[in-house]
Amino acid sequence: MSIKITGTGSYIPSGIKKNENFYSHEFLNSDGSIINGPNEVIVAKFKAITGIEERRYIKDELLNSDIAFFAAEKAIADANIDKESLDYIIVAHNYGDVKHNAEQSDTVPSIASRVKHLLGIRNPKCVGYDLLFGCPGWIEGVIQAKAFISSGLAKRCLVIGSETLSRVVDKHDRDSMIYSDGAGAVIVEKTDEDGGILTHDTATFSLDEAHFIYFGETNHPEISDKRRYIKMYGRKIYEFALKNVPLAMKSCLENSGCSITDVKKILIHQANEKMDEAIVKRFYKLHDMEMPKGIMPMSINTLGNSSVATIPTLLDLILKGKLENQHIDKGDVIIFASVGAGMNINAIVYRY
Amino acid sequence: MSIKITGTGSYIPSGIKKNENFYSHEFLNSDGSIINGPNEVIVAKFKAITGIEERRYIKDELLNSDIAFFAAEKAIADANIDKESLDYIIVAHNYGDVKHNAEQSDTVPSIASRVKHLLGIRNPKCVGYDLLFGCPGWIEGVIQAKAFISSGLAKRCLVIGSETLSRVVDKHDRDSMIYSDGAGAVIVEKTDEDGGILTHDTATFSLDEAHFIYFGETNHPEISDKRRYIKMYGRKIYEFALKNVPLAMKSCLENSGCSITDVKKILIHQANEKMDEAIVKRFYKLHDMEMPKGIMPMSINTLGNSSVATIPTLLDLILKGKLENQHIDKGDVIIFASVGAGMNINAIVYRY
Repeated sequence: MSIKITGTGSYIPSGIKKNENFYSHEFLNSDGSIINGPNEVIVAKFKAITGIEERRYIKDELLNSDIAFFAAEKAIADANIDKESLDYIIVAHNYGDVKHNAEQSDTVPSIASRVKHLLGIRNPKCVGYDLLFGCPGWIEGVIQAKAFISSGLAKRCLVIGSETLSRVVDKHDRDSMIYSDGAGAVIVEKTDEDGGILTHDTATFSLDEAHFIYFGETNHPEISDKRRYIKMYGRKIYEFALKNVPLAMKSCLENSGCSITDVKKILIHQANEKMDEAIVKRFYKLHDMEMPKGIMPMSINTLGNSSVATIPTLLDLILKGKLENQHIDKGDVIIFASVGAGMNINAIVYRY
Repeated sequence: MSIKITGTGSYIPSGIKKNENFYSHEFLNSDGSIINGPNEVIVAKFKAITGIEERRYIKDELLNSDIAFFAAEKAIADANIDKESLDYIIVAHNYGDVKHNAEQSDTVPSIASRVKHLLGIRNPKCVGYDLLFGCPGWIEGVIQAKAFISSGLAKRCLVIGSETLSRVVDKHDRDSMIYSDGAGAVIVEKTDEDGGILTHDTATFSLDEAHFIYFGETNHPEISDKRRYIKMYGRKIYEFALKNVPLAMKSCLENSGCSITDVKKILIHQANEKMDEAIVKRFYKLHDMEMPKGIMPMSINTLGNSSVATIPTLLDLILKGKLENQHIDKGDVIIFASVGAGMNINAIVYRY
C-alpha cells in the first residue's frame, strides 16, 4: 500500500501585474519614511533579490473559493475519478474570501464547503474543512490526508492550496510586490503501487518567531484607518528559514531511507528566489555537495509568491510539461518543502 | 490501546450581557422592515425559543487567541502533563482574532501559533494549526487528533474550540442575541485504558445548504457600509438539523456497538434550546423511546451559543462538578454531537 498523488490541477489568474506597474507607487519604510531613490531602482533591487518580474492577480469579480474550485476541477479530471468518491476536501489558505475593495475575510462557510458546493458534490460523507498553517498549509494538508488514509478514515482526498494575496497588500509597502494569487490542487489516495509519500516532517516555531509574518497597518503615516495588511520581517524570516528548513529537509530525507543522490527535484515554496536558492544550497552543503543544476524548478519569476498555492501549482506545471527543461519521471524521488507564517516549516519526501 | 480525553479546561468570559440589555436595541427584519411590538416581547419570544437569558462577552482588550490560551492552560494543568510533550495544538474557530471595534479577522499567524506562543512551548515538533469547520469544529478537531494518534503521527494533542462571536454580530438582527464568546480545551491522548473515542461520524452538506449560515450586511437599510456580520436562515437550519443530526447520532451509536440504553449523556452543541431538545427527542424516537430526563445537560441559558466552544465548555463544567445535578462516571457512554456552518454535522460516541 502507498499513498500517492494521482492527479493535479492549478489555476493561474489571467491578470498579469508587471514590475513596471509599480513605478508610480509611493513606497515607504515601515516607520513611514520615504525610501530614497526612484522606483525604477527600488523595483530593480527587488527583482534582484526575489527573482520576481511579474505576479498574477485574479479578476475583481472572483474570490479565493472560485479559484480553489477551478484548480480542484482540473485535479479531479486529471485523476480521472468520480468526484463523489472523495472522502475529504482540505483547503489550505490564510485569508479566506476577501472581496475586491473589501476589508473583511469571509470564512463562514469554510472555503472547503464553498468548493464542494461549486463542484456540485452530493455525497455528505465527503467532508470539507479549511486548514490554516501559513504558506506551508498545502504540504500540511497532504500530511493530514496521509494521516486520514493511514488511519482508515479515508481512501481519497482532494487537497487544495488557494490564496488571493492581492486582496491584502499594502500598496505603500515594497513587500507588496512579492505577493500573488493562485490555486493548486491534488488528489491524494491509497494505491497498490510502490512509492508515494515516504516521510514527512513538520514543525511550528512560535516562541520568538510567531509574529515574523503578521497583519499590520499601512506604512503610510497619513492614512489613519485601522485597516491591516499582510506584513513581514523579511530579514528575520530569511535567517530563520536558512537555519531551519535545510535541517528539516535533511531529517525527512534520512527517515525516508533515500540517499541524497536519489533526489531528482526539490519543489520549494516560491517565497523569494535568493532565499530559496540559499536554502537548497545549504541543504546540499549539509551533505557535502554542490547544488545540482536544474534540481530546483522555479516559477516565482512570472508567478510571484501565491502562498499555499506555489508548490501544487509548480508540481502541476512540471507534470503537464509546461515548465521548460523540467520533468518528473516514474521512480524519481522529490522533496517538497515550505516555510511560512506561524512560523511553520514542513517537508515531504515522495517517490513518483 | 484507546484514545481518551485526559484533561479539560474552559474560559467563561466575565462580561455578562443579559436579555434586558437588548431592550433598547433597534431590531429589524432582514428586509429592513421594523419588527412589530416592543422589544420586551421580542426578547421574551427569543428566550422562549432559544432558552437564552444571558450570554458572555470578552473584555475589550482581549482577543480570541487569548481566551483559547486561557482554556488551554487549564486543560494542560488538569491533565497534569508537560506542555512540551504535546504533538499537536488544534484550534477550531471561525473568525480568528477580531479586535474590539474592528472589522477584520486576523488569522496570520494562525490562532494555534498564537496559543503556542502564549503557552511558552519551545518544542518545534509541537505542530499548531487552525481548523475551520463551523460550530462542529471542536468535535472535528478531536476526530483529527484521533486520526493522528491512530496513524502514529502523534501521541498527545491539545484540541481547542474558541470563538468571540460578540465581535461579528449585527445589533439590528434579533439573532445577535444568540451569540456568545467562550473557549473550551481538552487533551486527547493514547492510553492503555479501555474506552475513550469509540466511533465518530462526520458529514458536510453543501449542495443546497452551504450558505444557510453566512456573512452578510446589517439589517439596517440606512447603514450603507459594506461591513458584514454572522447571519443565518434559522428556519432552514432547524429543519435541516432536525432531519440529519439524529440520523448521524444513530449511525455513530450503532457502529460503536453500544446500545441506546448504555447512553448516559448527550452533549450537544448549544445552538438553541428548542432545536437541541427536538434533535435529542427525535434521536430517542428513532429508537422508540422517550428522551430520558437529565440526559441532555444544557448551559445555553446562561452562556449562550459560543459556537465551537459550547461542547468542550459543557464537558469541563460537568467534569468539574459545576453543573447542577450533572455528572459523568467512569464507564458512562456519552455522545457528543454538533451541527453548524458548512453545513457540517458530526458526532462521537465516547466511553468514560
